[in-house]
Amino acid sequence: MSAKRPVVIDLKFSRAAMDEALKGAFADRDVIDLGLPENAGRDLSDATYALLWKPDPSLFKRATALEVLFSGGAGVDHILALPDLPDRPVVRFVDRSLTDRMSEWVVLNCLYHLRQMTTYQRQQREKLWNELALQPEARDVTVGVMGLGVLGEDAARKLKTMGFTVIGWSRRQKVLEGIETFDEDHLDAFLGKTDILVGLLPLTSETRGLYDSSLFSRLRQGGALSKPVFLNAGRGGSQVEADVIAALQKGVLGAASLDVFEKEPLAADSPLWAMENVVITPHAAAASDIRALFRHVEQQIARYEAGEALEHVVDRWAGY
Amino acid sequence: MSAKRPVVIDLKFSRAAMDEALKGAFADRDVIDLGLPENAGRDLSDATYALLWKPDPSLFKRATALEVLFSGGAGVDHILALPDLPDRPVVRFVDRSLTDRMSEWVVLNCLYHLRQMTTYQRQQREKLWNELALQPEARDVTVGVMGLGVLGEDAARKLKTMGFTVIGWSRRQKVLEGIETFDEDHLDAFLGKTDILVGLLPLTSETRGLYDSSLFSRLRQGGALSKPVFLNAGRGGSQVEADVIAALQKGVLGAASLDVFEKEPLAADSPLWAMENVVITPHAAAASDIRALFRHVEQQIARYEAGEALEHVVDRWAGY
Repeated sequence: MSAKRPVVIDLKFSRAAMDEALKGAFADRDVIDLGLPENAGRDLSDATYALLWKPDPSLFKRATALEVLFSGGAGVDHILALPDLPDRPVVRFVDRSLTDRMSEWVVLNCLYHLRQMTTYQRQQREKLWNELALQPEARDVTVGVMGLGVLGEDAARKLKTMGFTVIGWSRRQKVLEGIETFDEDHLDAFLGKTDILVGLLPLTSETRGLYDSSLFSRLRQGGALSKPVFLNAGRGGSQVEADVIAALQKGVLGAASLDVFEKEPLAADSPLWAMENVVITPHAAAASDIRALFRHVEQQIARYEAGEALEHVVDRWAGY
Repeated sequence: MSAKRPVVIDLKFSRAAMDEALKGAFADRDVIDLGLPENAGRDLSDATYALLWKPDPSLFKRATALEVLFSGGAGVDHILALPDLPDRPVVRFVDRSLTDRMSEWVVLNCLYHLRQMTTYQRQQREKLWNELALQPEARDVTVGVMGLGVLGEDAARKLKTMGFTVIGWSRRQKVLEGIETFDEDHLDAFLGKTDILVGLLPLTSETRGLYDSSLFSRLRQGGALSKPVFLNAGRGGSQVEADVIAALQKGVLGAASLDVFEKEPLAADSPLWAMENVVITPHAAAASDIRALFRHVEQQIARYEAGEALEHVVDRWAGY
């Protein structure tokens, strides 16, 4: 047995991707990969660390000596909701690659709606050469980013570089250079200025079902894009999908880009799939890079074993 | 008659847009708008300035006292090719709005292909929830920008902010911070590193038909996107469309985004319309804002009449 304390892993990557990434990772440390059939009944009582993404709920009954829990993604709601969760630090995944990918998705979708690509792509199918009469530019449009953690701040900064007018909202007010920010007491003021709403909130008891008919009705109508646009790449549980659909059908929303859904995969009978002004991606906005994830966990374990403070520890009271 | 010397205008905007923008523009100066029927036979011998976009070729026979010519867009090929062009300064349209819009289009289309939106949109039509196995991020992809004028430099800088690896090519080598650049003697080295080629070149005798089978075959194969992608928002005359189509069909190119074409509007029978991996926009990448255009021309006329040097004057020998 290795001298280094074991890590138990329960992730949802493909077998091939896991095998490839595990080569050379966690050197000299026992890795108990629950994705391997031979580990199905394995004794986990010596596992010190757990790296998890939507794990088997029975895990904590078996791994009773865990000292640190690591989330396989930026979100931690899938861990915090587990029964028998031990009172140990939960570390979120923060990584340059994850952040960059999320901002790619956010900027891509903001530009897609700004530049009316739904209409231009329909015209292309119709072989119709027609320059649209109204073509607002980024500075005419205010993007409101909800959630100003590492991901929201990076997206806001890049949207600003692209020329958008950018404002931000977070529960507790943040200060971001050149970006007007709002806190929980000023949500209406934030929504009333927002043409494109970008949802990057964690899923907590406070954000569950937050994006509903009432919220959509408070977004700015009559801005440069005429109707507000809703983007969500945070958590599906924050949106009331029936309300998203109704808002799109009634014209309260002009368009949407959704990467997350109340239930994933999105059901084949959801009307969202076929709505022309909706862009759907399958929870792929910011795919976790397995190697980057393993590096991050190795670094944090090294800090922990050297007696240093862990980074990116979740505030369990706040839920993120 | 006004004390200020007249400007003759031959642009291709809609009548309503022109009427609206002319209100308050060129104060106290005679404006001869050739878009108005009553000016069809008008004496132009006193016109000092001309603001033109694909003008009537007979213009220079009638307006014999022109001192400065202004292009209605960033390109000037439509002016330089005219018969009887007087030997007077030609001023291109350079404007923040035009630059920002062009960069929106370039970044949007680079992100669209990076994030494999053609495939995700097809999957959406098929109601198929499937995260793609390979999802490169921006830093894995090298965007090669051809043409490093005001537009190319701005696009390169914004692509870099979005995380792309960016290189640049121009006839004469430019120095851009953090961006490897190449000159006309090193085109092959530039192409061999390029995964997404962004064409922002002016149309000159040297760039006509430049984007052809030979050039496409020298782009990098087997990069993070597997096959190279071609974007053109410069001039359609720089591309051999039959070669673009053949390269896409043969898999020499993996995808394309085209805003400009050899003949515009693009013919309804062009195979490009129906190619799934091609994004077509109708020469709308960087719509000229009429008000901004008039402001620019007013500023340059003011400089000229104050005895200062005109800005953005075309090098007629180079053709741009």
